[in-house]
Amino acid sequence: MEENNKNIQFKISDELIDNVEQLVDSRSDTKILELLNDLHHADTAEILEELKIEQATYIIKLLDSEKTSEILMELDDDDREKILSTLSAKEIAEEIEELDTDDAADIIAELPEERQEEVISKIEDEEHKAEIQELLTYDEDTAGALMAKELVSVNENWTVTQCVKEMRAQAEEVTRVHSIYVVDDADRLIGRLSLKDLLMASPRAHISTVYIPKVDYVKVDEAPDEVARVMQKYDLEAIPVVDENKTLLGRITIDDIVDVIKEEAEKDYQLAAGITQDVEADDSIIELTRARLPWLFLGLLGGIGAFLIMEGFHGAFQKYAVLFFFTPLIAAMAGNVGVQSSAIIVQGLANDDVKGSINNRLIKEMLLAALNGLILALFLFLFVWGYTKEIPKALAISVSLIVVIIVAGLIGTFVPLFLDKKGIDPAIATGPFITTSNDIFGILIYFWIAKLILNI
Amino acid sequence: MEENNKNIQFKISDELIDNVEQLVDSRSDTKILELLNDLHHADTAEILEELKIEQATYIIKLLDSEKTSEILMELDDDDREKILSTLSAKEIAEEIEELDTDDAADIIAELPEERQEEVISKIEDEEHKAEIQELLTYDEDTAGALMAKELVSVNENWTVTQCVKEMRAQAEEVTRVHSIYVVDDADRLIGRLSLKDLLMASPRAHISTVYIPKVDYVKVDEAPDEVARVMQKYDLEAIPVVDENKTLLGRITIDDIVDVIKEEAEKDYQLAAGITQDVEADDSIIELTRARLPWLFLGLLGGIGAFLIMEGFHGAFQKYAVLFFFTPLIAAMAGNVGVQSSAIIVQGLANDDVKGSINNRLIKEMLLAALNGLILALFLFLFVWGYTKEIPKALAISVSLIVVIIVAGLIGTFVPLFLDKKGIDPAIATGPFITTSNDIFGILIYFWIAKLILNI
Repeated sequence: MEENNKNIQFKISDELIDNVEQLVDSRSDTKILELLNDLHHADTAEILEELKIEQATYIIKLLDSEKTSEILMELDDDDREKILSTLSAKEIAEEIEELDTDDAADIIAELPEERQEEVISKIEDEEHKAEIQELLTYDEDTAGALMAKELVSVNENWTVTQCVKEMRAQAEEVTRVHSIYVVDDADRLIGRLSLKDLLMASPRAHISTVYIPKVDYVKVDEAPDEVARVMQKYDLEAIPVVDENKTLLGRITIDDIVDVIKEEAEKDYQLAAGITQDVEADDSIIELTRARLPWLFLGLLGGIGAFLIMEGFHGAFQKYAVLFFFTPLIAAMAGNVGVQSSAIIVQGLANDDVKGSINNRLIKEMLLAALNGLILALFLFLFVWGYTKEIPKALAISVSLIVVIIVAGLIGTFVPLFLDKKGIDPAIATGPFITTSNDIFGILIYFWIAKLILNI
Repeated sequence: MEENNKNIQFKISDELIDNVEQLVDSRSDTKILELLNDLHHADTAEILEELKIEQATYIIKLLDSEKTSEILMELDDDDREKILSTLSAKEIAEEIEELDTDDAADIIAELPEERQEEVISKIEDEEHKAEIQELLTYDEDTAGALMAKELVSVNENWTVTQCVKEMRAQAEEVTRVHSIYVVDDADRLIGRLSLKDLLMASPRAHISTVYIPKVDYVKVDEAPDEVARVMQKYDLEAIPVVDENKTLLGRITIDDIVDVIKEEAEKDYQLAAGITQDVEADDSIIELTRARLPWLFLGLLGGIGAFLIMEGFHGAFQKYAVLFFFTPLIAAMAGNVGVQSSAIIVQGLANDDVKGSINNRLIKEMLLAALNGLILALFLFLFVWGYTKEIPKALAISVSLIVVIIVAGLIGTFVPLFLDKKGIDPAIATGPFITTSNDIFGILIYFWIAKLILNI
């Protein structure tokens, strides 16, 4: 039996890729089929991503659509787009026939608009076609766009035996049965039933006597991150989707929600690093520039702002050149503190565990920043004193540092809370936005306080 | 029926909290039970988190352990710890009897060491106790620590009817049946069976004729993020865990993996923002300081480094003060570019899609940085020229900027790749570590190139 068990530690070796390339180039169809036959579609997709597009397309056309449809779903968006562009509308429609409605709709939505209609018209299964067309009508950022039409539903008036019989038919089309949804005669969701419950119920019982009337559901226009929050909170593996009248429309499964959670986290991470738009290391230089340059430009403007401030204090500080040498330190500390405090707030908001008023947050951050600032300023004071032997300068620089850190912490705490209140994604506040504004405020405060202390 | 359906849009209102507090303070037990009876344990946990610890403890002691065990699992670690510290070993053991083995082991592992033994000794169900003790032996960072002992397994020699009968007994204890695992006489995992397959098979058939011999599994000492990768890649909702001999030990479900994915993403996000240790907005000032101060200290040292470099170029300050006024700009750009490029690499490494050699990466980043640098430098040139009317200065500053950006991009690309090769988590490379080193390198390169161009 050992040989039959799939080795999940599948790793692509360079030899395997070379081997596949040679087989494709020499058109050794039987050997390709033999080699790929035992592989999981996710593994085959990994191999195709290492090949040239023509080679990958050759393999896609060679395998049958039951397999290739799943492989296509696992590919990177870019690779899939390229391969699909070489297939005819008929060929794409054949792939789509094999997919669940949610995946099918996703693939069609990715096609250039002029091809979408053509591909849809070639889908032979009329029910599948209608369901896909329905899914395409939902807005991208809603539960409707995440759901699949495949589900098992039973009428409350059926008996367990009838139900099992009906289910055998329905279940053929549903890859995984999580819950059986119970509906009334008007197709409204009224409860659920687990396979386990069904297995343990008496065959003659009516569904209405055995189903569980408590059922979680989401509305079709709910936002994906709200669906994710609900499914995580209640540990659900699937959730039914209903319309305004509670008519059962579809279901969302946890694997799609895992993707939503990952995308959310990656977007926040990229925003914190100053990268807008969803890019990957393998994207083109133009795409990467488009995602990165705007934030760099913001940083440049911030730097010019800092320059203008320093220029403004130039006259006053002829005697105090040393003050200017600490501006990178001040800017760095203001930026770091701002990013830290905003990151904690952004993460707290995402996890829905920022409690209490904005004022309490600000007071706490002020105390925290004051404590950290005091420790850091003490260290800086000792360094500047030791280096310059001048207490007033050392005092001016280190007292400024404390104030700069407190203000930076307050800005870092306030801005994401403010954005969130205004309905703007607070994640844009961690990263270049906060760093840049804190650079400017930091340097301004620094010179202003130094001026006060040194009595210039 | 409408009233019976749980409203998933459950939101805690201030009135609800006030109401619960008053009921607790007036010891209105019946009313508390009435109010909380219909709530999901996750919702009840949310309410308890808003109460004082004594109030929350009062409610925990009032409800029965079937409910409270689940509520305890949903609480924040800190709140749970506080509540458990007020319970006797016997009371904790009662909660634990109600929990699945994985949750039970997690709770015991959180207790102070001296209480662990005591609580375990009070668990009455000997099988449950032995299973929990087994789980406690696995290292925290392994599949073993994530798995639960609850699963449904059947012997290959059973018939479908025998199997259904056995399963009714086993399934009582298993909240969700994902797959039925098929084992041989030596308890070695040899395949799987879905409930759907079982439902559709002839009752007289032998399991050996209907089971699927392809089954994904992980070894008990596998790392959690590898388990997460496998489950995501193959879209699994549960995966069996085996030992060296393929003996079936337990299973891991997707909800635990969702937590692993979220924790991984949050850790990376916090590292990028310069926060070590897992902290939340509601943690104490001391805990937050411990997580934030080390990185701020690193920034301070970087700032002192920048100061020393500028001091070294002090002589040039009289004639070229303007150069010094651009140091925050240079430092900010070096930091931003470094964070951007490292973030893309870190994310690519996490998603396992950084392909090709380090050299190719570096060449690509160099081209990208050169392109971005050129555009930004052109803008800066025009500004400095317009402001100072001196072409050499404008040229010196903007040419330096290009070089600084290229070097910053290369450092940002190389460091995470290097750390990854050395087996160190590359996520520490995004954030203060890169910003600080890029600040110093940036300013050094800047003055060095400016000096060359201006012939100082």
